[in-house]
Amino acid sequence: MENNLEEKRQPGKPRILIVGGVAGGASCAARARRMSEKAEIIMFERGPYVSFANCGLPYYVGDVITDESDLLIATPELFKSRFDIEVRLGSEVRSIDRKKHEIEVRNRQTGKVYREEYDALVLAPGATPVRPSLYGIDLPGIFSLRTIPDSRQIRERIAERKAKRAVVVGGGFIGLETTENLVRRGLSVTIVEMLAQVMPPVDPEMAVPIQEHLTANGVSLHLGDGVAGFEQDHEGNTISVVTRSGGRYICDMVLLAIGVRPEITLAKEADLEIGRLGGIRVDDQMRTSDERIWAVGDAVEVRDFVSGEWSLFPLAGVANRQGRTAADVVLGREATFRGVQGTIVCKVFDITVAATGMSEKSLNRSKLHDQEGHYEKIYLHPGHHVNYYPGAKPITMKLLFSTKDGKVLGAQAVGEEGVEKRIDVIAMAIQQRATVFDLEEAELGYAPQFGAAKDPVNIAGMIAANALRGDAPVAHWADATSSQSYVLDVREPQEFDLGHVEGATNIPLHSLRDRMSELPRNREILVYCAVGQRSYYASRALRLNGFSAKNISGGMKTYRAEGGEPASEKPKDKLPPS
Amino acid sequence: MENNLEEKRQPGKPRILIVGGVAGGASCAARARRMSEKAEIIMFERGPYVSFANCGLPYYVGDVITDESDLLIATPELFKSRFDIEVRLGSEVRSIDRKKHEIEVRNRQTGKVYREEYDALVLAPGATPVRPSLYGIDLPGIFSLRTIPDSRQIRERIAERKAKRAVVVGGGFIGLETTENLVRRGLSVTIVEMLAQVMPPVDPEMAVPIQEHLTANGVSLHLGDGVAGFEQDHEGNTISVVTRSGGRYICDMVLLAIGVRPEITLAKEADLEIGRLGGIRVDDQMRTSDERIWAVGDAVEVRDFVSGEWSLFPLAGVANRQGRTAADVVLGREATFRGVQGTIVCKVFDITVAATGMSEKSLNRSKLHDQEGHYEKIYLHPGHHVNYYPGAKPITMKLLFSTKDGKVLGAQAVGEEGVEKRIDVIAMAIQQRATVFDLEEAELGYAPQFGAAKDPVNIAGMIAANALRGDAPVAHWADATSSQSYVLDVREPQEFDLGHVEGATNIPLHSLRDRMSELPRNREILVYCAVGQRSYYASRALRLNGFSAKNISGGMKTYRAEGGEPASEKPKDKLPPS
Repeated sequence: MENNLEEKRQPGKPRILIVGGVAGGASCAARARRMSEKAEIIMFERGPYVSFANCGLPYYVGDVITDESDLLIATPELFKSRFDIEVRLGSEVRSIDRKKHEIEVRNRQTGKVYREEYDALVLAPGATPVRPSLYGIDLPGIFSLRTIPDSRQIRERIAERKAKRAVVVGGGFIGLETTENLVRRGLSVTIVEMLAQVMPPVDPEMAVPIQEHLTANGVSLHLGDGVAGFEQDHEGNTISVVTRSGGRYICDMVLLAIGVRPEITLAKEADLEIGRLGGIRVDDQMRTSDERIWAVGDAVEVRDFVSGEWSLFPLAGVANRQGRTAADVVLGREATFRGVQGTIVCKVFDITVAATGMSEKSLNRSKLHDQEGHYEKIYLHPGHHVNYYPGAKPITMKLLFSTKDGKVLGAQAVGEEGVEKRIDVIAMAIQQRATVFDLEEAELGYAPQFGAAKDPVNIAGMIAANALRGDAPVAHWADATSSQSYVLDVREPQEFDLGHVEGATNIPLHSLRDRMSELPRNREILVYCAVGQRSYYASRALRLNGFSAKNISGGMKTYRAEGGEPASEKPKDKLPPS
Repeated sequence: MENNLEEKRQPGKPRILIVGGVAGGASCAARARRMSEKAEIIMFERGPYVSFANCGLPYYVGDVITDESDLLIATPELFKSRFDIEVRLGSEVRSIDRKKHEIEVRNRQTGKVYREEYDALVLAPGATPVRPSLYGIDLPGIFSLRTIPDSRQIRERIAERKAKRAVVVGGGFIGLETTENLVRRGLSVTIVEMLAQVMPPVDPEMAVPIQEHLTANGVSLHLGDGVAGFEQDHEGNTISVVTRSGGRYICDMVLLAIGVRPEITLAKEADLEIGRLGGIRVDDQMRTSDERIWAVGDAVEVRDFVSGEWSLFPLAGVANRQGRTAADVVLGREATFRGVQGTIVCKVFDITVAATGMSEKSLNRSKLHDQEGHYEKIYLHPGHHVNYYPGAKPITMKLLFSTKDGKVLGAQAVGEEGVEKRIDVIAMAIQQRATVFDLEEAELGYAPQFGAAKDPVNIAGMIAANALRGDAPVAHWADATSSQSYVLDVREPQEFDLGHVEGATNIPLHSLRDRMSELPRNREILVYCAVGQRSYYASRALRLNGFSAKNISGGMKTYRAEGGEPASEKPKDKLPPS
């Protein structure tokens, strides 16, 4: 028998009740049917739809997706005819009686309340948009974007009010994707974000290209400023978004996109264990603290695959994996959820940002690098394909790795083309616990339209591996500005004159070998160029000639992304004190 | 000391001579300099250029790349100024005196012959286009495409003759890429290929979409027919390509693109060991049978990373990796070349084909599956991103894996978008010896523009893992046509009527549970649908209800690619004998 649940609990027809019918719940239900033809599977969904394309909602707002029904991945009818799964829409599960193994359900249309018995209960209630208690938050025209009705209301507001100005509160995925789509609809958009950066999953310097791109597309960006409240004018036509710093942004509609929090009301009232981050606590079989209750999706806390620490990752693919794991375990299979890497990708106008594994921010918050030794980071700015073929677009990449064993800890990339490919490749590397030495050796496809004989993934691995081997140790701009190091710029004089780092000495790479006598032997030399390649060659030559040289990773391009203001006057003649 | 060679052989300035200055040689030279500032490094190149973009040549023919100098990645001047490497162009290395550690060089311009001593010699002579001794092969207007002068000659021929018709002999990378570019230049192109398929690295059924795409772009395809010889008309204006089957194709120019063979003249005359496949034999440190001589690039045989067998893989990225390995070893570093996976990608018009690891053809030729047990294959046809977002293009994928342990052995994909990404991800998986269970669990980026919550890589892994676990064993069309199995089509009747497999019974998935009594319990049931998803659901339901059911991988789409001719009449009423 494949089906342990049937044997153990209720010979004949085990009852699996699933609370929530979107990604995690729907995946769990369909998988459960594939594991058992006998189980009775009922899915309760509070809203009017199951299995809809959450991630498509911003594009429905923007008329990229024009037919609302395209957002429906599956209907209750399909679940019935294809999988023999019963779906009850508009059905709110109000409580769990863990002793009797029953749930209480309320039909939101008829008001009828009834109870259903379960052999296994799977909670997939998802997450709810964060809605802080600010004054005016309930004014008409302030929206979240989480459900099909949400998107419909936004569309209606735009049409009815002939909306021209929107404020988007929050610069994460939903905020940025919806910004693009509101601009597409002809609105002028202001983003108000409490952090000093958009796209919180990546590090601040990696968000800079996105911010520049938003600005270039006419979006007003107000970073580092939280919302204090909302006011409407006397006619009720416009909304003013008032910020803590005293800013006031008048608009026709507001999107609140400041994140989601796990929906745990039901779990909490049933006294299931809740984690420190506010998600339902589950084991690696997706089981809650009650052995007959599982939980999946945005409502649960998960282990970060890299650090092993509890985290929240509200991602559709993750919810689906968890749904399948829970179904397997419910039906007696060996199955383990391996944790979450946090692989993300987001397109905003023409720019793509993607990441996998840990960011530098999350590493600094984590205990990982205390336990495992330190991490190092490197930057690079390769073309997405060879330069000799027309149309190469630069990618800015950041790679984080363990200095103990070279394990890849995380990667981030931003650019117009080929970004998601490099991050997906590194996501697979991280899953397999690969090192930077493996990235260096990766054999990826090369044709002029797609890459290079040395792919950006290879280059990232090489830079990191060269640093770990001690061949070309890397330094960072923070070292250059805070230390007494000697800073050497190996670009051409005309590049130097257009902007360089204050106090740097310019010796172009091609004349470096002839001019080494000008360099100090008793100080660390930090070398930079435009992106880090020429300075790598220079630092190798210097080190082999007995100098203590390091390559400033990412060069001037990273300097600018980190907020550095290049000096553009000729370098001062005086050498720094030696 | 980092530099063992200096210590061991010649204190002071070790001499490293490199024969050949394109991918492998140039990489080796630059890497050697990064490992030693003291070494004397001289690179001898027979042709007029070093370090040029071989892979860009078809696009120079097609005017996509318009400036010839764009093809030059580095010049002798750059090698000198940046790396202190001496480059001697037009310098043919004629022989090696292994006892004296000398080479004999001929300056092709002056005719001068001289000798140079080496401490280490690195051979990177590349490969030469295969040029069979057919009658008329030396007629004017018959070209290869391997060097910048080759591409210049083709451009001149097109311009001078106002060429309108070309025959491309050979349907591999160069043949297909050049075909696209000749069409771009306004020529009508006929491809003559001896094999029954284009793009030999992939299996025949995976080449079918490329063949259809070539035809749709106006290219005439003559497969399974070799060239017998070439004739020119009396005025010398046109060339007739005569095939073995008696075909005759009149044209203004011919491109010979039937592959390359390792350039081993020098190595052979020096009595270095040559492998069975005709490449220079090296160990995993890229050392030849002479301990002072290394060889890299298209001239050497390499270990197939998956099978461990000797192979030829003339790929630029591979040559670069080998060049770096050789430089490291020459200069006393520990370095090992890990072998070649054969990751390739090629774009032809709007279609991309990519592959990594072994093909089914190469597995059948290999001893691997005798040693390791059998392999299995699966097909899938997912969209490159979610269907709810406009513009999803189908990808056809094939995954090969070991039935012993689920190791991924190879993957191939073809489609318009997102093909190279999936193959690169699987290339990384193969490098890390990952299994189909790892692909199933991969966490890749999902946004509507790029993928799905279940990425094609996940789906490939799931289908394979479901087969290995015995949940959903796969069958193939060969089984369906050659066996006494019962073939069940679970598509809708209207799909069935438009074309189905002769003898199949149609029971749509949604009515399968009600009609199981119609199915035989004493025979194997092979289930199919359009692409394999509904038939997967059906086969699960059947198996859980006690039937012996298998899913025909890839469904009707693979049936057609394998050359199956669907019957389009109504199914015969008679059931097959049971």
